Amino acid sequence: MTLNIGVIGTGAIGRDHIRRITNTLSGARVTAVTDVQPKAAEETIATYGLDARALATGQEVIASRDVDAVLVTSWGPTHEEFVLASLAAGKPVFCEKPLATTAQGALNIVKAETALNHRLVQVGFMRRYDAGYRALKSVIDSGQIGAPLIVHCAHRNPDVPERYTTDMAINDTVIHELDVLRWLLDDDYVSAQVVYPRRSRHAFAHLADPQIVLLETAKGARIDVEVFVNCQYGYDIQCEVVGEAGTARLPEPMAVPLRVGAQRVSAILTDWKERFIASYDVELQDFIDAASEGTAAGPSSWDGLAAAVSADACVAAQGKPGAIVPITLPERPALYV
Amino acid sequence: MTLNIGVIGTGAIGRDHIRRITNTLSGARVTAVTDVQPKAAEETIATYGLDARALATGQEVIASRDVDAVLVTSWGPTHEEFVLASLAAGKPVFCEKPLATTAQGALNIVKAETALNHRLVQVGFMRRYDAGYRALKSVIDSGQIGAPLIVHCAHRNPDVPERYTTDMAINDTVIHELDVLRWLLDDDYVSAQVVYPRRSRHAFAHLADPQIVLLETAKGARIDVEVFVNCQYGYDIQCEVVGEAGTARLPEPMAVPLRVGAQRVSAILTDWKERFIASYDVELQDFIDAASEGTAAGPSSWDGLAAAVSADACVAAQGKPGAIVPITLPERPALYV
Amino acid sequence: MTLNIGVIGTGAIGRDHIRRITNTLSGARVTAVTDVQPKAAEETIATYGLDARALATGQEVIASRDVDAVLVTSWGPTHEEFVLASLAAGKPVFCEKPLATTAQGALNIVKAETALNHRLVQVGFMRRYDAGYRALKSVIDSGQIGAPLIVHCAHRNPDVPERYTTDMAINDTVIHELDVLRWLLDDDYVSAQVVYPRRSRHAFAHLADPQIVLLETAKGARIDVEVFVNCQYGYDIQCEVVGEAGTARLPEPMAVPLRVGAQRVSAILTDWKERFIASYDVELQDFIDAASEGTAAGPSSWDGLAAAVSADACVAAQGKPGAIVPITLPERPALYV
Amino acid sequence: MTLNIGVIGTGAIGRDHIRRITNTLSGARVTAVTDVQPKAAEETIATYGLDARALATGQEVIASRDVDAVLVTSWGPTHEEFVLASLAAGKPVFCEKPLATTAQGALNIVKAETALNHRLVQVGFMRRYDAGYRALKSVIDSGQIGAPLIVHCAHRNPDVPERYTTDMAINDTVIHELDVLRWLLDDDYVSAQVVYPRRSRHAFAHLADPQIVLLETAKGARIDVEVFVNCQYGYDIQCEVVGEAGTARLPEPMAVPLRVGAQRVSAILTDWKERFIASYDVELQDFIDAASEGTAAGPSSWDGLAAAVSADACVAAQGKPGAIVPITLPERPALYV
Ligand SMILES: [Mg+2]
Ligand SMILES: [Mg+2]
Ligand SMILES: [Mg+2]
Ligand SMILES: [Mg+2]
Repeated sequence: MTLNIGVIGTGAIGRDHIRRITNTLSGARVTAVTDVQPKAAEETIATYGLDARALATGQEVIASRDVDAVLVTSWGPTHEEFVLASLAAGKPVFCEKPLATTAQGALNIVKAETALNHRLVQVGFMRRYDAGYRALKSVIDSGQIGAPLIVHCAHRNPDVPERYTTDMAINDTVIHELDVLRWLLDDDYVSAQVVYPRRSRHAFAHLADPQIVLLETAKGARIDVEVFVNCQYGYDIQCEVVGEAGTARLPEPMAVPLRVGAQRVSAILTDWKERFIASYDVELQDFIDAASEGTAAGPSSWDGLAAAVSADACVAAQGKPGAIVPITLPERPALYV
Repeated sequence: MTLNIGVIGTGAIGRDHIRRITNTLSGARVTAVTDVQPKAAEETIATYGLDARALATGQEVIASRDVDAVLVTSWGPTHEEFVLASLAAGKPVFCEKPLATTAQGALNIVKAETALNHRLVQVGFMRRYDAGYRALKSVIDSGQIGAPLIVHCAHRNPDVPERYTTDMAINDTVIHELDVLRWLLDDDYVSAQVVYPRRSRHAFAHLADPQIVLLETAKGARIDVEVFVNCQYGYDIQCEVVGEAGTARLPEPMAVPLRVGAQRVSAILTDWKERFIASYDVELQDFIDAASEGTAAGPSSWDGLAAAVSADACVAAQGKPGAIVPITLPERPALYV
Repeated sequence: MTLNIGVIGTGAIGRDHIRRITNTLSGARVTAVTDVQPKAAEETIATYGLDARALATGQEVIASRDVDAVLVTSWGPTHEEFVLASLAAGKPVFCEKPLATTAQGALNIVKAETALNHRLVQVGFMRRYDAGYRALKSVIDSGQIGAPLIVHCAHRNPDVPERYTTDMAINDTVIHELDVLRWLLDDDYVSAQVVYPRRSRHAFAHLADPQIVLLETAKGARIDVEVFVNCQYGYDIQCEVVGEAGTARLPEPMAVPLRVGAQRVSAILTDWKERFIASYDVELQDFIDAASEGTAAGPSSWDGLAAAVSADACVAAQGKPGAIVPITLPERPALYV
Repeated sequence: MTLNIGVIGTGAIGRDHIRRITNTLSGARVTAVTDVQPKAAEETIATYGLDARALATGQEVIASRDVDAVLVTSWGPTHEEFVLASLAAGKPVFCEKPLATTAQGALNIVKAETALNHRLVQVGFMRRYDAGYRALKSVIDSGQIGAPLIVHCAHRNPDVPERYTTDMAINDTVIHELDVLRWLLDDDYVSAQVVYPRRSRHAFAHLADPQIVLLETAKGARIDVEVFVNCQYGYDIQCEVVGEAGTARLPEPMAVPLRVGAQRVSAILTDWKERFIASYDVELQDFIDAASEGTAAGPSSWDGLAAAVSADACVAAQGKPGAIVPITLPERPALYV
C-alpha cells in the first residue's frame, strides 16, 4: 500500500522533496535515488536514513522494479528525457518545472502521454496548491464577483543574483503567473506585450527591471503583471481579479499585526521559499495519492506545454517593446479537457 | 449676522480657537479678549490681526455689548465663575473641559441653566465631533450590530510628563471616554472598578501605569478601558462595541499603507493634538451656529456634570483596587432629555 | 478684508460652491451671481440668503466693481470666454474643469496669463486637495519608497447613465488621474495606449467598459489606469505607487469596521460626490486665500492645458487599440515652473 | 520504525484522529481500537481500511503488545483511568481534554508521571499548535513589544445548543484561553473575577451570555476574556497582547478580501472545527514524533492540572459576580519546569 518513489536528482529541491516524503507526507517512501554526482545520492540516503538504493542513472531508477513512481528533480535540460522514459515505463512521474526546456520538448511529452490516453505526468507548478490561490479560485468560481474581466498581478523579489538575466523574468519568474492564472481563470492566452518602466537603480546594468507584461486571454480578460525582482522590500505576490460585479484579491500571508515605534506593522516575507512552502506538501501529497491509483492529477503536461508556449511569446515580446505578440497553442487533446 | 465672540483666556487652547474662528470657520469673529496676563491678550490680538479689544477681566468680556457669545479657555478653577456669569448675562458660552473642578460646581451650573430653562452652555468634549466616533455611533444607531453589550476601549499615550499623577489618568485622560461613551451608548454609568496591571518600567515611579477601568452602565453594558499613558509606540485611541449581533470599531486615523523594509507599515500618530484636530473645527462651528440662534448644542452642562460625577467615582475606585464603587447621578432635568 | 466673489453659473456645482463660501469657508462672500436662466440666479440668492445682486451676464459679473474674484461654474463651452475676460479684468478666477473644451482654448488662456506674468487662474482639479492624495504625495516626496517607477490606478464607478460614451471615460473620468498623477509624480506624459478588456455585461451596448489606459512619463514611469464605470460594487479610487525601494497606496476612505453575518465588513462609498467632498472645501479656501492676495494657487491654467493635451492623446489612443500615441506639450512658460 | 497506536474511543474526535494518522501524518498507524459500542470500533476499522484489531476494552488496548502508544478519545470521565493505565504500562499517551474531570484526578496523573520522572502524557490543547498563536508567541518572545502587561481576549461562537450551561463557558470554552495564555505568557494565574454584562436576547434563558472573565497572573499581567457564545456573526477568537513597548495581535484566519455590493468584505468562519483544523495535524504529529522516541512533548499533565485548577476558580467566580477568587497551584514538580 505504500508507494515506492524513485528520485532523479538530489540537489536542493530533490532533497527537500525526499525530506517531506519521509517525514511529513503519508503513503510513500523513497526506495531509489540517483544523481549526476553519485556521492550526493549516497549522502542523501544517509542524511534522511532512507531504506533506498543509490543507482547509477535516471534510466535505472525508472526501470527499477521497486520504483512505482518517479520524481524528476534533476537539471532542467534532462527533464524531457526522464519524463518520456517514465511514460514509456507506464509510471506516474512528477517533474519539477520546466517540463522541458523548449515548447517542442513539452509537445513531445504531451504526444507521448496522449498516445497512452492516460494521465501520468504532474508538473511542479505548486501555486495551484497554495491555500490563498485556492481560496481565490473558489471565490471566482462561486460567481460572487461575476465574470473576470481584468487581473492585476505583481511578482516582486527583494533582489536577484547577478546571473539573473532579463529573459529569466519570464522563464523563472512570470512562468508561475502564466500557469496559475490559466488555472485561476480557466482560460488561455492569445497575446502578450512587454513594456519597460524606468530601470531601478538597484538592478544590475544588464537587467531590465521592473518590467510589465500585458496578456490578453481567449475569453477577453486583460492581465497586467508587474515583474520587479529588485524591489528591495520583500518577496511579495499580488493578484487582484476584477469581475463584472466585484473584485477579489489573493490573501496576504499570515503575519502578526504589531503596533510599535509609531507604526502599525506586519512582516513581509523576504525569502521566496517560505511563501509557498506549505503548497509543496499539498502538491506532493496530491502526486502520491494519484500515483497510488496509477495516474496523475494537478498541473498536466498540457499545462507545462501551455506555459512553455506562452513564455516563449513573452520572451519574444521582450525583444519588441510595445509590440503585441500573438500566442497560439496547438489544439488541446481530449485527455486534458 | 456675524457672531461676536469674547474669549476669556489666551493660552494655547484659547489662541487655537481664536485662530480657527478667524481663519477657518464661518460666521463669527473675535471682538474681545482677556487674559490673566494682559500682555498675552494684547499679543494675541496682534498675532491674529483681530479687530478686537483687550479687556481687563473675564467679567468685562461677558458684560461687553459687542460680545454675543463667550469662550471660556482660562485656567480650570475659573471656569465655573465665568460660565455662571455668562448664564446670568443670557449669553451662549463654550467652556473647555472641565466645566467645573468639582461635581458641585458643575451642579451649580446645571441648576442655573435649568432655571433659565434654555440651553446656553456647550462643554468642550470634542470627541463627539470626531468623524470616526460619529460614523461608529451611526452604525450603532442603525441597529446593525444589535443592542450594545460590551465596549472594549484603550486610551494610549506614548508618554507623559513627570507631573502626571495617577488620578490624572481619570481626570485628564479617561474623562474623554467617560463623556464619549455615554453619548455613544446613550446610557449612564452605575459603577466603576479599577485594577492595576504590573507597572510599565517606562512609567515614573509615582505613577500606576497602565490601569484598567471597568464600568457598568444603567442598561447593563460592561465597559473596559485600558489607560496606558507610557505605551511608547504612539497616541492610540481604540473603541470596539460588541452588540447582540455583531461588533463595530472606531476607524483608524487615515494613514498611507507602505511596503518597505520587509514590512507592511502604516504610521500611528504620536501627538494627541493631531488625533482630534479636525473635530475642534466641527465642535466650534457647531457652537457658532447654535449661538447665532441664541442657544447651545452639543455636550451640555448636564454632560459636564455626569462626567464629573463619574470621574469622581473612578478616582475613588483607584483608591480601593478591585472594589466596585457605585456611581449615582442626580435626576436629569427635562432640559437635558 | 472679506473677498467679494462673483459666480457665473448657478447649476448644482455653482450652488454647492456658493453654499460653502457662505456657510463653511472663511474670508469671502458672494456678491454677484448670474445664470443663463435668470430665475435660477434669483432663486439661488434667496435660498442661501445672499446679500448679492443677480446680473444678466457673466461679463457683467466680471466687470462688477463689487466683485474681487470670479467663480466660473457655467456650461463647459463658456469657460474659456469667462476665464479670458477675468484675466483681462485682472481678477483671480476659479474655473471648474474643463478649463476649455479644446487644447487650443486652454493654450489661449495660458498665453493670456503668461502675458500678465502673474497667476490669476485656478482650475477645479480637487483631488490635489484630498487628504489621502496629499498624504501619499508627502510619502513619495519623503523618499521613503525611492523614485517612482510604476503607478497602478483604478477608477471605478458603480454605473453611469446611458448618455455616457466611450470617450467620456477619458474626458470626464480619467481626466482626474491625468491631473493628479502629474502632480503626484511631478512629471509629464509622453505616450498613451488604450486596451479593451472584454466588455462588462452591465455596460450599455455603445460603451466600451472597462478600459485600460497605459501611460509613459518623461521620467520613464509607467502608469496603468483601469477605468471601469459599471463596476457595480461602488465608487472606488485606487492608486498604488511602486518605487525603487517600496510601495505606497492611497488610503481607503474612512469606514467603520464591522463584524456581522459571518463577514468582516467596511462600507464602500457609492456616490462619487462623497468621495472628495472635503477636498472641495480645501480647494476653494485655497482660492479664497490666494485671491485675497491678488493671485492664484493650486492647479494652474498650465495644468489645465496639460490635462487637455493628454486627454486628447488618450482619446486618439482609444481609436487605435494597442497603438502607442505620443503626447507632446508645448514648452512650459517660466510662470508655471 | 512505524509507531503503532491504539485508540480508545471512536467517536467523532477519535475517528478524526484515526483519519489523520492514516491519511495525512507520517510515521504511525492505528493497530488497535476500542469503543464502548463495539460496533463503532468495527465500523471505524472498515471505514478507514485499517489493519487493526477491535478490542473489548481500553485496558486491553493499553496492554496490547502491538500498541506502542495510546490515544484517549473516550468519554471525559474515563480519561483519568486510561491515562493512569498507560502510565503504568510505560506507554506514551495522548489524552483529549479534559485530562481528568476534577483537579484531583489531574493531580493523580501528575503524581504518577512524576513518580516515573519521565514525560509520557500529552494533553489535547491544540491551540499551542496553531500557526497564528505560534507566530504571536514568537513575537512576544522576541522582546519587540516588551514585557506583556495586559491581554485582551475574545472567544465568540455564533451560537450554542440549549444544553450549554453557564459553567460550560468556563469548562468548554475559556478552558482554551486558560491553557494557551499560560503558554503564551509563560506565566500562571493568581486570581479570577467574573462580571456579567446584560444578557444577549439570543441566549437561552438559562445561560448568562456574554460573560467577562478577568484574570491576574503571577507576573502581574491582567487578562480580560470576553466569552460570548451567541454572538451570531461567527466563530471568532481574538487575542491582543499589550507590552511595555507595543502591542501584538493574533492574526486573522486567511480570507479572500472582496469588494462587492458597496462593501469591503472578508469571510469570518462560523464553524469552530475549521478554525484550528490545521493545528490538530501538527499536534498529533508532535505526539507521534515524541512517542516514537518513547516520550511526550507539548501540553503536559501539569498543564492539564493547571487548567483544571484555574477553571475551578473561574467557576467559583461565576457564583460570586464581582468577587476576586484566588487561584492556587501546588508546587510545580521539576519534571515540568
Ligand atoms: Mg514545484
Ligand atoms: Mg475641546
Ligand atoms: Mg472641482
Ligand atoms: Mg485537541
